[in-house]
Amino acid sequence: MTPGDTPDPTPGPASPSGGRGRAPDVRELVDRARDGEARAVARLISLVEDAGPAVREVAAALAPHTGHAQVVGLTGAPGVGKSTTTTALVRVLRGRGLRVGVLAVDPSSPFSGGALLGDRVRMEDHAGDDGVYIRSMAARGHLGGLARATPQALRVLDAAGCDVVLVETVGVGQSELEVASLADTTVVLLAPGMGDGIQAAKAGILEVADVLVVNKADRDGADRTVRDLRSALGLGGRHETPGAWCPPVVRTVATTGTGVDDLVRALGEHRAWLASSGEGPRRRSARAAREIEAVALGALRERMGDVRGSAALATLADQVAAGRTDPFRAAALLLDRL
Amino acid sequence: MTPGDTPDPTPGPASPSGGRGRAPDVRELVDRARDGEARAVARLISLVEDAGPAVREVAAALAPHTGHAQVVGLTGAPGVGKSTTTTALVRVLRGRGLRVGVLAVDPSSPFSGGALLGDRVRMEDHAGDDGVYIRSMAARGHLGGLARATPQALRVLDAAGCDVVLVETVGVGQSELEVASLADTTVVLLAPGMGDGIQAAKAGILEVADVLVVNKADRDGADRTVRDLRSALGLGGRHETPGAWCPPVVRTVATTGTGVDDLVRALGEHRAWLASSGEGPRRRSARAAREIEAVALGALRERMGDVRGSAALATLADQVAAGRTDPFRAAALLLDRL
Repeated sequence: MTPGDTPDPTPGPASPSGGRGRAPDVRELVDRARDGEARAVARLISLVEDAGPAVREVAAALAPHTGHAQVVGLTGAPGVGKSTTTTALVRVLRGRGLRVGVLAVDPSSPFSGGALLGDRVRMEDHAGDDGVYIRSMAARGHLGGLARATPQALRVLDAAGCDVVLVETVGVGQSELEVASLADTTVVLLAPGMGDGIQAAKAGILEVADVLVVNKADRDGADRTVRDLRSALGLGGRHETPGAWCPPVVRTVATTGTGVDDLVRALGEHRAWLASSGEGPRRRSARAAREIEAVALGALRERMGDVRGSAALATLADQVAAGRTDPFRAAALLLDRL
Repeated sequence: MTPGDTPDPTPGPASPSGGRGRAPDVRELVDRARDGEARAVARLISLVEDAGPAVREVAAALAPHTGHAQVVGLTGAPGVGKSTTTTALVRVLRGRGLRVGVLAVDPSSPFSGGALLGDRVRMEDHAGDDGVYIRSMAARGHLGGLARATPQALRVLDAAGCDVVLVETVGVGQSELEVASLADTTVVLLAPGMGDGIQAAKAGILEVADVLVVNKADRDGADRTVRDLRSALGLGGRHETPGAWCPPVVRTVATTGTGVDDLVRALGEHRAWLASSGEGPRRRSARAAREIEAVALGALRERMGDVRGSAALATLADQVAAGRTDPFRAAALLLDRL
């Protein structure tokens, strides 16, 4: 019979969240997301992006419902047609009745800005379609933040019942490695004249690619690019290991949809191989290990942040500056206090 | 009376290091460095660069002997004349009987490669001079490694009795901030036509500069660059705070030595201001605090490294991959075990 138990006699709007004000009811959101409610999916992704206290609750609520979706990473140099290919894939996968999620992690992606003409119009075909979730992660800015939020956003889409989640990533620098660390299936896109197979081999692309796509395959030089890639793959010796996956080279013209069925078939075959070979669970565990490490390191860094500006650190710093101790002893003392 | 206690009857060479084999006698090295022995200085810097177990012992042995040297950071865009200015400064400072250290942290510096003609020849003037230590840190490669080793290398030169240590850093990106975080006195070099004062203000250079140098001052446009800088400094309002340091703008032609005396005078005035204003100890404490934090965070990261590949992490990762727990709970469990 505490005051809080007394019913409020004032008439007013019903409070479905049980009086907890603006705190989201995470379990309810997860239930609604699993029922296919797009707004609940969007809200959950926002919660994991914000990295507030709710993110732990969201992660715990999502965990039992994950593990179904095939995460397909698409990477490649700018201009190779990643967004057009993503759009074409969504159309074919939806045509087969599959639920599809799209996470655009590339800040230069038209899905991120929502501005580029052709692609945007085409994605709008799916605007009223409950079976597609399209989400740009790029608004969060720096890649470090993206790297932290993306695995959780993938779990939201997975728990929401997506059969396939397409992740479009920046096609520069170490991004091939990054997408490979996120995805069950890594698709590397190339275009004729944008670097042949030998260059791809040098760039380490062949090591991470599960499926290679030569897009714009109606252009001059496509045959040569395909041939070079196959030859480079042969040199890698993957053919010779029994049971190993040999990355298929798929020709597409994403703007017209040509070859996209072949790409969908290759994705399905890779999915089946991941399950039958045991490589799927192995990749997921390795991914989870990296994520646990990242979360743990982030937590340690936060604890360090707590000491920044603290009296303890200031005292130790004065002692180091005065030559009365050294940074290593001071750091050890600081860590003892954490 | 274990077998190890029995004296070895075999005659052999004396073991001055007390039988500790290749382990360096750090205290002895520090004593020799303080006596001005260049080889001991070089050995100590190598030890802190290697970041092996001896680095803690070196730091502890150096601490009581530090705090004398003025650390002068030189930064500026490539081609502005950093190395020529460093060479000219060494000559003038040595001419006044001061002991000088040079740390070249810029991988593109001629001191690093030892290859560029004019500068190298000039630095060779000092090759047999006990009062100058020149050391390139760039061979260690990546900037993260440099950032870790440089504060300790500065302490070695400080303990070795240097009156001034010149640190030449990469003139790109965030390096102005980095040099400001290392140095007692930050010198920013500009050249006519390489960006006027307004651009310098935009780039945040004026905020970190304690002394501004317009090098190549015999070229067209030098007057304008000096005027622009003075005007931009005036806008910053530093003139108006009583006791505040207003960065002087010094004109030099480092290749001929013109104006280098003025630069040395400005460095001396800043040194005196650092002492009289209390800003010197404040900067050193702030620097020490950042260093303690970096060492502590490095230690935490190492502990994380110990769990990589461990059975505990693998088990937790499998549980996350299977949806039985989430990365946050797993990370918390992992941290409990550290």
